[in-house]
Amino acid sequence: MTEQMQILYERLSFCFETRKFADLRILLLDMEPVDIALFLENNLDEKEQIMFFRLLPKELASDVFVEFDTSTQQSLIKAFSDKELKEVIDDMFLDDTVDIIEEMPANVVKRILMNASPEDRKQINELLEYPEDSAGSIMTTEFISFSPSTTIESAFDKIRRTGLTKETIYTCYVVDRKKRLLGAVSVKDMLLAEKNTIIADIMDSNAVVVNTLDDKEQVALMFSKYDKLALPVIDKEGCLVGIITVDDAVDVIQEEASEDIQKIAAVLPNEKPYLKQSIFSIYKARAPWLILLLITSTFTSIILSKYESSLDAIMYAFVPMLMGTAGNAGGQTSVTIIRAIAVRDVEFKDIFKVILKELLVSIVLGITISLICFGKIMLIDRLYNDISMMRASVISLVCAISIIMAKLVGSILPLLAKKIKLDPAVVASPLMTTIVDALSLIIYCTIAIAVL
Amino acid sequence: MTEQMQILYERLSFCFETRKFADLRILLLDMEPVDIALFLENNLDEKEQIMFFRLLPKELASDVFVEFDTSTQQSLIKAFSDKELKEVIDDMFLDDTVDIIEEMPANVVKRILMNASPEDRKQINELLEYPEDSAGSIMTTEFISFSPSTTIESAFDKIRRTGLTKETIYTCYVVDRKKRLLGAVSVKDMLLAEKNTIIADIMDSNAVVVNTLDDKEQVALMFSKYDKLALPVIDKEGCLVGIITVDDAVDVIQEEASEDIQKIAAVLPNEKPYLKQSIFSIYKARAPWLILLLITSTFTSIILSKYESSLDAIMYAFVPMLMGTAGNAGGQTSVTIIRAIAVRDVEFKDIFKVILKELLVSIVLGITISLICFGKIMLIDRLYNDISMMRASVISLVCAISIIMAKLVGSILPLLAKKIKLDPAVVASPLMTTIVDALSLIIYCTIAIAVL
Repeated sequence: MTEQMQILYERLSFCFETRKFADLRILLLDMEPVDIALFLENNLDEKEQIMFFRLLPKELASDVFVEFDTSTQQSLIKAFSDKELKEVIDDMFLDDTVDIIEEMPANVVKRILMNASPEDRKQINELLEYPEDSAGSIMTTEFISFSPSTTIESAFDKIRRTGLTKETIYTCYVVDRKKRLLGAVSVKDMLLAEKNTIIADIMDSNAVVVNTLDDKEQVALMFSKYDKLALPVIDKEGCLVGIITVDDAVDVIQEEASEDIQKIAAVLPNEKPYLKQSIFSIYKARAPWLILLLITSTFTSIILSKYESSLDAIMYAFVPMLMGTAGNAGGQTSVTIIRAIAVRDVEFKDIFKVILKELLVSIVLGITISLICFGKIMLIDRLYNDISMMRASVISLVCAISIIMAKLVGSILPLLAKKIKLDPAVVASPLMTTIVDALSLIIYCTIAIAVL
Repeated sequence: MTEQMQILYERLSFCFETRKFADLRILLLDMEPVDIALFLENNLDEKEQIMFFRLLPKELASDVFVEFDTSTQQSLIKAFSDKELKEVIDDMFLDDTVDIIEEMPANVVKRILMNASPEDRKQINELLEYPEDSAGSIMTTEFISFSPSTTIESAFDKIRRTGLTKETIYTCYVVDRKKRLLGAVSVKDMLLAEKNTIIADIMDSNAVVVNTLDDKEQVALMFSKYDKLALPVIDKEGCLVGIITVDDAVDVIQEEASEDIQKIAAVLPNEKPYLKQSIFSIYKARAPWLILLLITSTFTSIILSKYESSLDAIMYAFVPMLMGTAGNAGGQTSVTIIRAIAVRDVEFKDIFKVILKELLVSIVLGITISLICFGKIMLIDRLYNDISMMRASVISLVCAISIIMAKLVGSILPLLAKKIKLDPAVVASPLMTTIVDALSLIIYCTIAIAVL
């Protein structure tokens, strides 16, 4: 938190405690809604929160409300009268209302829907029906549309009349009588055109569109590719049913990156900020993978027991190093490929290009690392252990082979997972570890038996 | 690539090969610049690229140019006449020109600067002076500003006159005579206000601002926090020197997430798409960490050699399982904390909260996993190896202790790295692995000697 914000928060606290509500309102009017929400959550108890919330200037209340945590929202709704709840809901954008509803228990949902206007309720119910990760689930139905014959002048009249309740006014859409999307028009182009031009003449009739059932991650990537402020969402019939704005795309990009990072680290994804997660929810997110990886590690124990006679204490001492190097080498590749798939840099059809690339890289890396490994053993490890040059050669050779093997496994697994429609991040990381651990051990023991 | 795009690309190829250039231009006018750029890069050779580029409608040329890869840009610039180069540069936004210049060799930079207008050249040179990861380095100087006494009507006149060359017109800024920032005003508010209102009456005088030297990642996070389309950038004197638009913030968010993921996987960050990276650049990004981790693994070899007498073959067989579990447990925590630091959910001052949380989670997890480990040994591992209940207990106990130790190391390291201003993602992951590997081995050997 910046110093400036800290001072502001202290002034808010002071005004609130000393009941200088007029001063408080003046301070609040200049603040961003999210900063007000954070102040309430971090500095006030439940009772104070509702009291403070009632002091908010009307035009700010719903903007602040959407910024709260689910738990704060729930406790506030509980304290709201029906009239208060209705006011907040009426002022919220529909996509925000839907987001809130998705997190609430059934009785709260019922109360929200009861207090929404009949028209809103109908649209909320429609939005709730889209699958969880679809474009439909993050779109809003509050957009501005024109018929193609509208003049610029009457278009601006419409924006002035209805703009206040729309999620964005900067991109408007052109539809025919059946609501089929004909094009998009930006306020910039409208401002730069003559008053009596008709919309059809300046609209972009090949606007980038998304479908209601498109994956929301893919939609978010389209924002970063095309640099748009909003994208229109059409249904199967080509009718415009909603729009997605760039601020929602930013959130999706952040969330998906966090999710991928969690999956790579063998944690089940959790959207809440770390400090707000309960001990139990952290436990639930971590235990499954730890258990699974513990059980699959049985393979390494079996292999080590089976080849018991092939390794003596000196050779045993290098098992962690070899398995670690193979695991690191495989992880470098699998994580790189997982991310490349996520940002659509790589598809399944590129599999041979990827394998060839990784093969070449791994051969060069294998040679480099095994030479360094040999040098390290002769210079460092020989200081505390009596290792023959023959043994050092075997260990270095295994190091090189393991790196090549690990990088091939690491490049193929994520692409195969994608092909059979599994999540590359979930499948590839832990499975990669298990396979690479087992294979590198087998390679080590086999070569050790053969040579020594 | 969608089917639709594939068909479009085939039509482009056909028109180009059969020299139907009029048809080609009609197709191009409806396309997004980035899609045209991708077509050239993936379907044409160098000679064809320059020929095709010259066919582009004037108004599209520079938009397409900024979407190219650095290498394509370089070969095109080489082929351009000075006149062509000048046209492209004049039409580009200054922040894009600066981005391109930063990637080009000195002789190309010189040519670009020579062909820029004197005014542009001055501003480009100023932008080039900001540190690499600063807000200044990603801002543009092409924004619209008003004096506070401007009326809405004349403000719109100014937008119509100058808007075409500005990066955004939707957020305009209000400055005094010394260019100090007084506030921000959105086109939405301007459209909804009366014609003769003055800007000072509707501006937001507490606009969120960033400083030229702020970290660009932090700036990108402000976009996701405040849902803005643009943020003003001010210098030390409070003067408005530029703006950052949301599309640039989206790119920063994507890049920073990819970078963090690469660092976690022990790969040096590389901004290029995977398929465009050369074998050598991939090698360079991966070799350093593999070498470092190979060398630090000497600790585990030393420990295993030192405690040689404490472990027999049966106990050795569980070393990979124990080290693996500790590594996974530590990785879960360190990666979670690294991400939480990156998205500003956790700061150094939260260290005790984090440690307490991880301690509680790790105790519960430790108990769970060690019970499962004990069951697994008695049920599965006893099938192929003769393990006494005493040994199974020792292994399970070490498993629990290692998990607790690993989670504490994993939570403390990233926060300490942040505190001493090192990159948590770079420092914590590999260092964590080394420490956790070594400690879990020491715990295992010590307890094995004491009990067995």
